[in-house]
This record gives sequence, C-alpha cells and structure tokens, in this order.
Amino acid sequence: MYSLDQIAEHLGAKLIGDPQIQINGVQALDKAGQGQLSFLSNPRYRKNLSTTLASAVMVKADQADNCTTAALVVDDPYLAYALISGWFDTRPGHKAGVSDKAMIDPTAVIAADVMIAAGVVIEAGTVIELGVEIGANSVIGANCVIGKDTRLAANVTLYHEVRLGQRNLVHSGAVIGADGFGFANQQGQWLKISQIGRVITGDDVEIGACTSVDRGAIEDTVIGDGVKIDNQIQIGHNVVIGDHTAMAGCAGVAGSTKIGTRCTIGGAAVIAGHITIADDVHVSGMAMVTKSLSEPGIYSSGTGIAPYHKWRKSVARFNQLDKLVERVSQLEQALKDKD
Amino acid sequence: MYSLDQIAEHLGAKLIGDPQIQINGVQALDKAGQGQLSFLSNPRYRKNLSTTLASAVMVKADQADNCTTAALVVDDPYLAYALISGWFDTRPGHKAGVSDKAMIDPTAVIAADVMIAAGVVIEAGTVIELGVEIGANSVIGANCVIGKDTRLAANVTLYHEVRLGQRNLVHSGAVIGADGFGFANQQGQWLKISQIGRVITGDDVEIGACTSVDRGAIEDTVIGDGVKIDNQIQIGHNVVIGDHTAMAGCAGVAGSTKIGTRCTIGGAAVIAGHITIADDVHVSGMAMVTKSLSEPGIYSSGTGIAPYHKWRKSVARFNQLDKLVERVSQLEQALKDKD
Amino acid sequence: MYSLDQIAEHLGAKLIGDPQIQINGVQALDKAGQGQLSFLSNPRYRKNLSTTLASAVMVKADQADNCTTAALVVDDPYLAYALISGWFDTRPGHKAGVSDKAMIDPTAVIAADVMIAAGVVIEAGTVIELGVEIGANSVIGANCVIGKDTRLAANVTLYHEVRLGQRNLVHSGAVIGADGFGFANQQGQWLKISQIGRVITGDDVEIGACTSVDRGAIEDTVIGDGVKIDNQIQIGHNVVIGDHTAMAGCAGVAGSTKIGTRCTIGGAAVIAGHITIADDVHVSGMAMVTKSLSEPGIYSSGTGIAPYHKWRKSVARFNQLDKLVERVSQLEQALKDKD
Repeated sequence: MYSLDQIAEHLGAKLIGDPQIQINGVQALDKAGQGQLSFLSNPRYRKNLSTTLASAVMVKADQADNCTTAALVVDDPYLAYALISGWFDTRPGHKAGVSDKAMIDPTAVIAADVMIAAGVVIEAGTVIELGVEIGANSVIGANCVIGKDTRLAANVTLYHEVRLGQRNLVHSGAVIGADGFGFANQQGQWLKISQIGRVITGDDVEIGACTSVDRGAIEDTVIGDGVKIDNQIQIGHNVVIGDHTAMAGCAGVAGSTKIGTRCTIGGAAVIAGHITIADDVHVSGMAMVTKSLSEPGIYSSGTGIAPYHKWRKSVARFNQLDKLVERVSQLEQALKDKD
Repeated sequence: MYSLDQIAEHLGAKLIGDPQIQINGVQALDKAGQGQLSFLSNPRYRKNLSTTLASAVMVKADQADNCTTAALVVDDPYLAYALISGWFDTRPGHKAGVSDKAMIDPTAVIAADVMIAAGVVIEAGTVIELGVEIGANSVIGANCVIGKDTRLAANVTLYHEVRLGQRNLVHSGAVIGADGFGFANQQGQWLKISQIGRVITGDDVEIGACTSVDRGAIEDTVIGDGVKIDNQIQIGHNVVIGDHTAMAGCAGVAGSTKIGTRCTIGGAAVIAGHITIADDVHVSGMAMVTKSLSEPGIYSSGTGIAPYHKWRKSVARFNQLDKLVERVSQLEQALKDKD
Repeated sequence: MYSLDQIAEHLGAKLIGDPQIQINGVQALDKAGQGQLSFLSNPRYRKNLSTTLASAVMVKADQADNCTTAALVVDDPYLAYALISGWFDTRPGHKAGVSDKAMIDPTAVIAADVMIAAGVVIEAGTVIELGVEIGANSVIGANCVIGKDTRLAANVTLYHEVRLGQRNLVHSGAVIGADGFGFANQQGQWLKISQIGRVITGDDVEIGACTSVDRGAIEDTVIGDGVKIDNQIQIGHNVVIGDHTAMAGCAGVAGSTKIGTRCTIGGAAVIAGHITIADDVHVSGMAMVTKSLSEPGIYSSGTGIAPYHKWRKSVARFNQLDKLVERVSQLEQALKDKD
C-alpha cells in the first residue's frame, strides 16, 4: 500500500488530486477498481478515462483535464507504468541464505549475501557474486561466473564456463551453454566437433523460459548489454547479439550470425546462419531471414493468413508463377508484334 | 489381462465371439498379434481387417461381418480405442506418499493422499489438493493451488501464484507462470514491466513437454476447461484460450490474444498478439495469423513445399508480383486501346 | 598441451614444420595466436593463411605451400578439426561415481563405473549400463535402459520405458518419452488416448537442449543410428527417423511421419504428420513440408525476406493470384480473338 504522493515522487509526476489516496495495485482502465492505479498510453483507450473506477490514472498533460479520478501527469504513461509496476509485484521476496538442501562444490566461491534455493547444484570452480538469486533445482556447471544481482529462476541449467553479467534474469527451463550443432560429415556419418567456446552475456540481459543459448564452437557466443530474449528461443553457437536488441518468443538464430544493436526480432522469426543483420533492423513475426540485411528498416516474409480454399488456389498459382510471367511476356510480345 | 466381455461392458459394445478371450494390449491392425485388441477407424485400413492377427477388433456395425476375429461393435471405434487405451498403459502406478527427499515449505498445505516424488520443491503457502501427483524434481512456487487429481510429470516448473484446475496433466520441462515479455523503451533501453498477473487453468487441461505459459502482465493468463496444449508451445501473457481448444506442437500465441472455444491450432502455427480468434476456427499447420479471425472456418498460409530450384524462381516472382500486376494492367489497357 | 607430432599422428597428417611445437587450443585463422592450431576449409578464408598468427594450420595439400606457419596436410581439414577438437575441450572430466545426493530406486540396476551426479532421480527397474554419465537433477523414469557410454547432461527428463542406445548424448532440458498428442473427440470434448508406446534410439544419437521426443501412441517412436537432433525440436509420437539424418534447431515433425536415412532438415522446418520422406532428402530452413517427398533432392518453401512495404504489396498480390491468372487467360483469349 502506497500513498499517491509516494508514487508521484517516485515517478517525478505532477499530482492532481488527494495525495493521501492509498494505492494497492495497478490495473487496466476498464478493469481497475477502488485503490488501483491505472494509465492511459494507447489513445484507443481514451474513452475508458471517463468510466474507469481506478483511484488514480497516469496520463500525459493533454489528458489531465479528462481525468475523472486523481491524475499523475507524466511524459510517458507507459514508461511510468513500467517504473511503478515493481512496487506491486506479488513475487515473494527471497531472503539471502543458502539452503542446506543445495549441493555446492567446495571449490565454488559464493558471495555472502546470495539466495540459493533447495536442490540447486553448483559445480567446481564457479563464482557466485553478491546479490545473486538461484531458484530451486537449478544446475550451474563448472567454472561459471554469475554476475552481481543476477537472478536465475527454478530449473535453469548452465553448462560449464558460462559467464553471466550483472542484473541478468534467466527464466525456468532455459539452458545456457549446451553444445552447438557442429558435425563434420565422414563418409555419410556425422562426427561431433567438440564445442569449446563459451557463452558470455552482458549486463541487464533477460533470457526467457525454455530458451536455449548454445556455447560457441571455438569462439564465444556473445549476448550484449540490455538484450531481452523471450521464451522458446534458440540462439546458435557463435552468435553475437548487439546491445539492447529484443527478440520475441519462438524466434531462432542459426550459428555464427551477427545481429546489430537496437534490433527487434518478431515472434517465431528465423534468422539463417553466417549472416549479418545491421543495427536498427526490425524483423516481423514469423519472417524468414535468408540473407544479410545491411540497411536499417522493417523486413517481412510469408503470405499472410487466408481462408483455406482461397489459400489452396493461391499456393497453386504461386508454384506456377514462373509460367505466368512467361505468359505475360508472350502477351506483351504478341501485342508488340501487332503494332 | 482383461477378458473381452469386461472390455465390451466398459465400452457398451456388442460382443461377437468368445467373451473369455484374454486381451493384454492394443495395437494397430497390421501390427497386432495374439492377445491384442485392435480397431478399424480410418476406412483406408479396411483391407487389414481380413489379415489382422489381433484377437479382437473394435468396428462399426457395418464392418462386423468383415471381421475374421472376435468383434466389438461400437458407434465410434476410435473413441472406443481412446476409452480402453488406459487399461493397457505401461506407466507405473504411483502409490500415494510424500518422498522424504521432497523439500516442502512448512506453510504449504498438502492433502493426505497425494504423491510427491523425490527432489520436488514446494514453496510457501502453496495448496496441493487431493489426489495430486508431482513428479521428481518439479518445483512449485509460492502461493500456488494445484487442483484435485492433477498430475505434474518430472521437472515441471510453476512460478508463484499459479492456479491449476482439476485433472490437469502437465508434462516435463513445461514452465507455467514465467514473466511475460513486457518492457517499456526508455531512451533506447528496455525497462522491465513487472509481470504481476497470474496463470489460471480450468479443469481437464493438458500442457505438453517444454511448453511455456507466461503469467499475465496485470490481468491473468487464462486457459479454459478441456484445453489441450501440445509440446514446445509458447502462450504469451494475458492470452485467453476458450474451452476445448487444442493446439498442436510448436505453435505460439503472442500476448493479449483471445482464442475462442473448440478451435484447433495446427503445429507451428503462430498467432499475433492483441487479436481475437472466433470460436470454431481451425488454423492449418505453420499458418501465420496476422489479424483477428471473426468467422469460423479453416485458415492457412505459406507457399507449400517445392523443389528448391523451382521454389527459387517462384520466390523471385513473388517479390515482383506488384510489377507483374502492373504489366497485366498495361496489357489490358493496350488491348482496350486497340478496340 | 600437445606437440604437433602427437596431433599429426592422431590425424594421419603429413607434418611440415617443427614437430615439437606445443599446441594448447584450436581457433579460427583470423583469431588464432601463439600456441593455437587452426584450419583452412572454406576457400573464402584462404587470404587469412598468410596473416594468421596460429602456430600451425591444417590444410589440404594444394595449400601447403601457402602456409606461413607449420602445416598439417590432410585430405579434409574440417574433418581433421572435428577429429582433434575434443583434445581441447574445456568440459571437466567426470570421475566415475554415484553421488550420495542421487536418489536411486533400489530395483534399478546400475553398472559399476557410471557417473551419476547430485540430485539425479532414477526410478524402479531402470538399467544404467557401463560408462554412462548422468548430469545433476536429471530424472530417469521407470524401466528405462541407458546404453553404454551414453551421456545425459543436467536436467534431462526421461519418462518410463525409454531405451537409449550406446554413445548417445542428450542435452539439458530435453524430454524423452512424454505423451504424444492423441485425443479422440467425444461430443466436442477431447478424450485422452493413453500413450503406451516407447521411445527407442539407436547408437550415436545426439538430442539437443529443450528438445522433446514423444513416446509412441501404440507403436514406438524410433530414432535411428547416428541421428543428430538439435535444440528446440519436437518429434511427435510414432515418428521414425532413419540413420544418419540430421535436424537443425526449432524443426518439428508431426506424428506418425517416417523420415529416411541421410536426410538433412533445416532449422525451423516443419514436417506434417502421417507422411513419408525418402532417403537423402534435404529440406531448407523454415520449409513447410505438407506432403510426402518420394524423390531425393532439396525442397523449400516460403517467400524469402523483403522490406516491409514491398512485402505488403506482394502478399496482397499473392492473395489475388487466382484473379490475376484469370485476367491473363482473358487477355490471351482476347488476343486470339483478334487474330
């Protein structure tokens, strides 16, 4: 429970209304009730401003007069929502402490104020820095470094020689440092190439649930500062991702590809191996990036969605497109011949 | 081992043949042998009816005369197969009991007849109802509720504040309640939005291996009764899935999308965020649903499969389609001018 | 640290240079330094041969003269790299031994020289053969067989009745033997079909991180010898994969499909259920295989990548292709009428 003036102070917001209003949660305009704080970011929801039951709303200056509730006037209400959301998080605070049910190699170096839950396994030579939290049943391989204030949820796996920066957040089911997919073909059989590079992440990286980031073959796989990687994503060996790039769920990046800074990769987009994506490239959901993209911009692929029978016809035509172009060329020639 | 009349009684089937025949398994018509029960559902396999070595076959009435084996006459042989398959399941029955190698917070409330395997971690305030089974090394976060007769396989992860209904089945590697992918952009950097909603599932839900269902940002992520979600699926935050909808492997649903009841979503289909899919919509495998679908029906996308060199030409033509249409328009005009 | 003549002997290579040069690692030509061994496989990197700081390079005979370093002359430098890479692996060697923190059912049969890490759970009746390694917190269900010298990384899950061949490698987060996605529809509700088949793998199989291989419905799911399956892959129930086939990350195979031997399936390619793929078929990344492929060859689908605004036009045209073909046919007819 926070008073509105506490919140206003945290956000640097101008408060219009009773500073003593008590706030116990955030909620969307149309769902909010007594004691809840809401926000108007998308103009589409402006009509909800007059009917919301929220106790206060974060708005831009130009909407302050339309508020029927107390208002917190800010430059960017969505950002303000992000900044205040943590105050109402229901995640239980973990107290520092190492569970006596954790299994930690005696050669691991564990800082004094970490939280290590039951069932965690930490192998030889690993360094756990100040403020780290490791959720239940996670496994940290040998010779890793987990940077300050990084949090691993339950059931995370790190292989050996993985280095995570500071303030990383790694979700359950994520696997960091498994072998890249590297084989040489020897007379029709696949001969394994030992994957001896590492995975290195910068600071403020988030890695989603059930996501895998492979270790490098020879060089390292490198995830830059501030990179956000959603769930169910595959990052191949030797991939390099530039700072502040974000990738949505189910995306995949094949080996040895370099992605620039500040890119956004849409959900289920797939990026081929051994290519380079420039800074500030935005790839649409489910796009299939088959070649390097050297210019910033938005890129897409696919055929969109259509009713099945209509789609069946379009696909048949797609697979005859070359013939159709030929027919048009012949028509053009025939018409020219007539002149 | 069951006698044929026990099986007939369970299925409400008319038995033609010796009721004392002993059955020890189910198998496909062409693979079945002595002591096995088979079924004819797909007419394509009708020819196998005369050659099967099964001891009995479940058939529709119109095929009873074609059976060279004992017959169980039912309305829907595939349904009958489903109804009897559990009798021959090789999964070891788990006896009720809490492993002394499980690590359970003293504030958790555990019903008397549950099965909790070794290595399980259950955090504070969680309620485990009657008949629940939790497989080895699964982790249940704080303040969850696991409904009656729900089963979690090994290595499942639930974050805090997840509520599963009754008779759910959650497979290994599944992660329920991880943070949704929510960030505000602050001068080129991604600022995390705390994900404070929950995940709520109805009754009779199945969630596949390595599938992730994110918790809501503010509101809850809601999975309806009887929903079946296969492996490797991503369900984004705030998604709502209607009752009895089924989603095949590798599908993905981006945040805040609402899917209706009785839908089927094909394998690897991807559904954009913030859209609405009507009841009784069927999405083909690998379709890319980019917009709301307000009418029931089948929807598809993609180009089908083609030999590489033919496909290369078609893709080149696809990317020149606008020009081709222009050429056709010019031809039409030229021809018109000639009249 | 190995001397160059030790390495030459292992590879059967002709050594040009000082046999006593000491090698402590492998590295790419442009990154290598003192004490490192490199290789020239892709002709694209030939120019790096004159500038590399490596202490020795593996090359084909025709490049030996261009080496400014010691040379190891071999038939296939990439294969030589694969063959020597394991000598420089940083993965800590695990000594045989069963952790006293592992939880092993007394009816399991464990060979004498295995490595079983902390937190591992092994259920009743399972057989662990000689030389097997099982990483921390992995769970092996009842009545499994883990073949000789197979290695499971940490946090792997095997359900009951899974049989892995010899020298398999299974990565973290992988789930083998979960239920296939099988339901009969009973008046609009999904009735579960018990999945009572097994998963059987051959020898020398690798299964990637966060990959799921479902158990058979009735028959078994079968993975052939030497098959390599990357991360984030879904293998449906009853699938059969032929020997020495390789599948790249994020691919999916729906139920009951048979894939031939020596196939390669590109990243994120999706293969429909109940179809047959011939031997020596190569499927491009992100292809959508909707039908059986009976001839060897390369197959592809999708539209390639394009700038967003151009793509939007092409998609609109794609969805009007049938109409465009009609317009061309009318033009052809009109022109013919003019003759």
